[in-house]
Amino acid sequence: MNHPSPLRHYRNQLVRFGVLCLIASPFMSAQTSNTLLPKPAQMTVAAGSIPFTGNFTVSLNGAHNPILEAATRRTLDALELSTGIPLGKGLQAPDATLTIQVQDPSGTRPTLDTDESYSIHSTGNKIVLKAGNVFGALHGLETLQQLLQVEGGNYVIPAVQIDDAPRFPWRGFMLDVSRHFMPLPVIYRTLDGMAAVKLNVFHWHLTDDQGFRVESKRFPQLTQVGSDHLFYTQDQVRAVIAYASARGIRVVPEFDVPGHVTSWLIGMPELGSIQRPYALARTFGVWDGALDPTKDSTYQFLDAFIGEMADLFPDEYMHMGGDESNGKDWKANPQIVDFMKAHNMKSTEELQAYFSARVLELVKGHHKQMVGWDEILTPNTPKDAIIQSWRGVESLAVASKQGNRGILSAPYYLDGMKTSERMYLDDPIPDGSALTAEQQKLVLGGEACMWAEQITPQTVDSRVWPRTAALAERFWSPRETRDVPDMYRRLAVESLRLDALGLTHISGPQSGLRQLAGGEEGAAQLAVLASTLSPVSFGERYHQQRTSQLTPMGNPVDYLRPDPALRENLLLIADRYLHSTSPAEHSAARQQLESLFQSWIDSGPRLDSLAADNPRLRQLSERRIQLVKLGTLGVQALKAIDSHKAPSAAWIEQQNALLKEAGSHTELTDFVVLPPLQQLLEAAGKH
Amino acid sequence: MNHPSPLRHYRNQLVRFGVLCLIASPFMSAQTSNTLLPKPAQMTVAAGSIPFTGNFTVSLNGAHNPILEAATRRTLDALELSTGIPLGKGLQAPDATLTIQVQDPSGTRPTLDTDESYSIHSTGNKIVLKAGNVFGALHGLETLQQLLQVEGGNYVIPAVQIDDAPRFPWRGFMLDVSRHFMPLPVIYRTLDGMAAVKLNVFHWHLTDDQGFRVESKRFPQLTQVGSDHLFYTQDQVRAVIAYASARGIRVVPEFDVPGHVTSWLIGMPELGSIQRPYALARTFGVWDGALDPTKDSTYQFLDAFIGEMADLFPDEYMHMGGDESNGKDWKANPQIVDFMKAHNMKSTEELQAYFSARVLELVKGHHKQMVGWDEILTPNTPKDAIIQSWRGVESLAVASKQGNRGILSAPYYLDGMKTSERMYLDDPIPDGSALTAEQQKLVLGGEACMWAEQITPQTVDSRVWPRTAALAERFWSPRETRDVPDMYRRLAVESLRLDALGLTHISGPQSGLRQLAGGEEGAAQLAVLASTLSPVSFGERYHQQRTSQLTPMGNPVDYLRPDPALRENLLLIADRYLHSTSPAEHSAARQQLESLFQSWIDSGPRLDSLAADNPRLRQLSERRIQLVKLGTLGVQALKAIDSHKAPSAAWIEQQNALLKEAGSHTELTDFVVLPPLQQLLEAAGKH
Repeated sequence: MNHPSPLRHYRNQLVRFGVLCLIASPFMSAQTSNTLLPKPAQMTVAAGSIPFTGNFTVSLNGAHNPILEAATRRTLDALELSTGIPLGKGLQAPDATLTIQVQDPSGTRPTLDTDESYSIHSTGNKIVLKAGNVFGALHGLETLQQLLQVEGGNYVIPAVQIDDAPRFPWRGFMLDVSRHFMPLPVIYRTLDGMAAVKLNVFHWHLTDDQGFRVESKRFPQLTQVGSDHLFYTQDQVRAVIAYASARGIRVVPEFDVPGHVTSWLIGMPELGSIQRPYALARTFGVWDGALDPTKDSTYQFLDAFIGEMADLFPDEYMHMGGDESNGKDWKANPQIVDFMKAHNMKSTEELQAYFSARVLELVKGHHKQMVGWDEILTPNTPKDAIIQSWRGVESLAVASKQGNRGILSAPYYLDGMKTSERMYLDDPIPDGSALTAEQQKLVLGGEACMWAEQITPQTVDSRVWPRTAALAERFWSPRETRDVPDMYRRLAVESLRLDALGLTHISGPQSGLRQLAGGEEGAAQLAVLASTLSPVSFGERYHQQRTSQLTPMGNPVDYLRPDPALRENLLLIADRYLHSTSPAEHSAARQQLESLFQSWIDSGPRLDSLAADNPRLRQLSERRIQLVKLGTLGVQALKAIDSHKAPSAAWIEQQNALLKEAGSHTELTDFVVLPPLQQLLEAAGKH
Repeated sequence: MNHPSPLRHYRNQLVRFGVLCLIASPFMSAQTSNTLLPKPAQMTVAAGSIPFTGNFTVSLNGAHNPILEAATRRTLDALELSTGIPLGKGLQAPDATLTIQVQDPSGTRPTLDTDESYSIHSTGNKIVLKAGNVFGALHGLETLQQLLQVEGGNYVIPAVQIDDAPRFPWRGFMLDVSRHFMPLPVIYRTLDGMAAVKLNVFHWHLTDDQGFRVESKRFPQLTQVGSDHLFYTQDQVRAVIAYASARGIRVVPEFDVPGHVTSWLIGMPELGSIQRPYALARTFGVWDGALDPTKDSTYQFLDAFIGEMADLFPDEYMHMGGDESNGKDWKANPQIVDFMKAHNMKSTEELQAYFSARVLELVKGHHKQMVGWDEILTPNTPKDAIIQSWRGVESLAVASKQGNRGILSAPYYLDGMKTSERMYLDDPIPDGSALTAEQQKLVLGGEACMWAEQITPQTVDSRVWPRTAALAERFWSPRETRDVPDMYRRLAVESLRLDALGLTHISGPQSGLRQLAGGEEGAAQLAVLASTLSPVSFGERYHQQRTSQLTPMGNPVDYLRPDPALRENLLLIADRYLHSTSPAEHSAARQQLESLFQSWIDSGPRLDSLAADNPRLRQLSERRIQLVKLGTLGVQALKAIDSHKAPSAAWIEQQNALLKEAGSHTELTDFVVLPPLQQLLEAAGKH
């Protein structure tokens, strides 16, 4: 079927706004009912549904728990806001539509062994949410919000039986607030997003070479001279923890030692291995400054500091870092070298193992369990240390075999700018793992990590979301949940839900493009280009630009989104065009492709004229030229395929060269649209 | 000149996205260099400009003041972010590009009599900013950021001589945080926006029937049972005041008495005139609850409470409300009636005057001056009371003649949803004012007022900005600054600057449309309609919808913007089409009009299909149908004018009926595009 002309024109026009186009359309024919993310462990959809009207009422079944009550009110508010239907706010309604039954409603703070399971049974005109405790019920309330849908023009909750529980108990998100300080609104909205997708550990990377971000009342000099006056007071920390607890999220603080401590040594140089003037590190990388592991005074300080922080942070786990300690300052201090000799230590790694063991004892002395990066893992590492693996999944296997519990982060570094798909498919327990079932139980879960070298409060959300929601499913849902197109279908919906919560992953880049282009009109032009590009990885950008803490982060690359929607959607449409057996689908896909490619061609002169008055847009001048050429490639390939006339070998060679050139890391960006173009080119060549 | 086809096509396409189109284009031919807002009192533009490069340096000329240093750093950060050029952050550079000379750098908090003047002299390769004190310098730094522009593809600061000072010393913005609580991020970003446009009084309406929002340590029951647990702690208040002071903004708290006190009486019913059970008011309007003005215990309480608040809020002024006390409870209490008789009071107004006089004495006792709404003005009102006029400019004249100082707010109620133009042209001292020069000096300025009956943290910014920036110019710039098109030209730029500061007046409604439409694609369709509509005024919405504090505010009307850009721009383009003597201009304007009208016609079926699955969009079903008809009217009028063929009388009558129908307050909305359509219709009829 050919679309009637007005509709085609309309699509044509939408397609020109690259970011706008192609988001929902490829999915329209897929199953549209269930958009739950993460996917529940077990779900059965029954026939029928419960109308969602102003008569919707709730009963907490007599339970009185401030966290549960507040979460239920938030759920009602969210349902009201997304339907426009005013609801009563009573929480103990007789004969309620939604009954929440919590066996033990006394919970105030989640812990690693909290039972997070819940069930939802909706049928007839009633919904029953059951959970063993408050935190399971919180997850159920999030699922309930995601269940709301439109059926026959009305809002309904479908009839379902959900029996849900997480696969892993440690489902974390790490935020570095040292390299760039993240003010409280960022923290709060991050916690909102985490709760929405059932993440349950906020790992707060509070100290590093570039800034010490938490107030110590015992050692106030740490923030006084080590933070640019950008830090969280203890009152603020307590408020954040209360907010997180009320959303079923544990807060695990990290104090990174013995390396990454430049910011500590400014106010307390006596802790350092080398006496030199210390100043805040502005550039990134591995610094030499390190605590002196040979002095008793170091451990006396750590004991006092850990004790203070153990009181401030109620969670049973404390992260003590341990990564990237290069040992240079240790080797440069004769007393430390003597100490190593006296203790028969052959390497600084052995000295770090000694240090880690002592720190672990201090942490235990304050009734906490220690987490550390995988550098702390040695054959002698105490069994009660938890290993967070950032260098690869292998060290997690080693840890498990040694009997240490572990958390995987290596594949989940958000600054790598990898696609949701790629991170999503990386499992904490990989295919063919040699671990026994018992050893596998020691893998507690995973953490997405957001390092802050190249992000600001304005751009952080666009690096974190929605990709972290895909990872949340990896950590929560059964191992076999691996259908990538279905994940993207649900992720597109979840991304909008996160937008409604106040996260700025959509609005932030849009605002940035407005700023760059000087208004909406220019931003719409720039969006055509932006929708085809991803920022290069942290490492690649660092290599090209040598960013520091003082580098302004308001350039085009900062307002590109990793894994933009067009990447996955263009793959699907090209596939449909090339392989669909339905003539209507084939024809519709062809129309979408041609309109898109034409928009790329059209973008050239428009962006040239925009850039003439806009020095910052010149940063994308190569990409602008390439996009026009890629659009031309696309249009000509379509023509060749349709006409069954093979293009000349010279032309094909030229286009392959173009794809190769466009495939390089240029202007801090990567094109995300090349594979489907390659497919089209190959298909054209076969005719 | 006719545009070449690709460009026309491009415009055509942009125009379809109503909100995107027509924003910058009408202004492109106007003067583009100066976008300062508010306009300085005096400015001379010289030849030449100072290149803005990474060599730009600053010297505070030896001054050390934390407020000045922080503001200078913020300015450097903003310049970096908007140019992408990294700058050094030293503040005492030798031979600096920018020298800041502050005569008295000791300021820590602005007051009503702070000298806010400053001058900027930029020439050669140097810029000198001079001010008598820190707060004048802060204004100069904001101006400096607005001066940055692109010239010949490079960033420059133009050579100028600016001598600037405000017309009025009281340039306020009032935010009601009682009807809907506004969390701290809203407060902070509001202060950011105020500082950007040189507003200097944050009037914090902290108490009302619907919520008591500030912690009292002496009377904790006020918030414990009168706030839904939504209030600011005293620590938070102090932090807000520090933040405001550092931006040259005074914080004037309001405690509204003797009426609007329902929230007070829940925890302290003994203060009430009638003993009844009090509960938080959910609906709006004038409630009967009122403090008992006849009991000594009332004044003892007020003395203690005012004393506590006088310590908390350092500003010399305290607002004690006084509005809309209906006297019903007073008349219903025989003891109060007896008191009135005994004191020979003939009306409850006289009783309120007695009460106001006693409150003023209490306020004075705590070394504050009292501000009150114009109800407190009687012939006997003490001369040191300041009158804030909300009922009309007349009471301000009465106040001035009596010797009372006054602040105008009546024309500046943001919930009236009036255009920027209309509010902008309303002067605190109207044309033909009968006040003497001396009396005019008693008019201290004005305040934009944002009442919170129908706003939420998600929508507040779109009601406040950018309209409040236009008012800021009314309060700051010389009286004769009244060029409306030029104001709109600069306001469009300022709106983007506010967007960059993190205000959500653009991103919030965009996110709302995404939520309503279920994605970007639908949002773009909905934006065509939204760009032609304004929300009706508070009163009209209340009349139609009977909103309460519990009404969900996430409907289409909540995501419309008052005074959308299309209103002013369409007027300009229609005028150009009808009256331009340049054939090229005429032809370009015609093309823009036709594309726009066509986009309205096309929106019909698209929005119908969107609304089919979207119950909330049915709220705009009449407007959708009308927009298609209005688009058809437009297209046909253009044809008639071009062909010089008068349409039939029946058709004209039909179109007039359509315009009349479209002109009604329907579905909580007003069309903003009708006057230019009326003009086109009339022009068509004349042929």
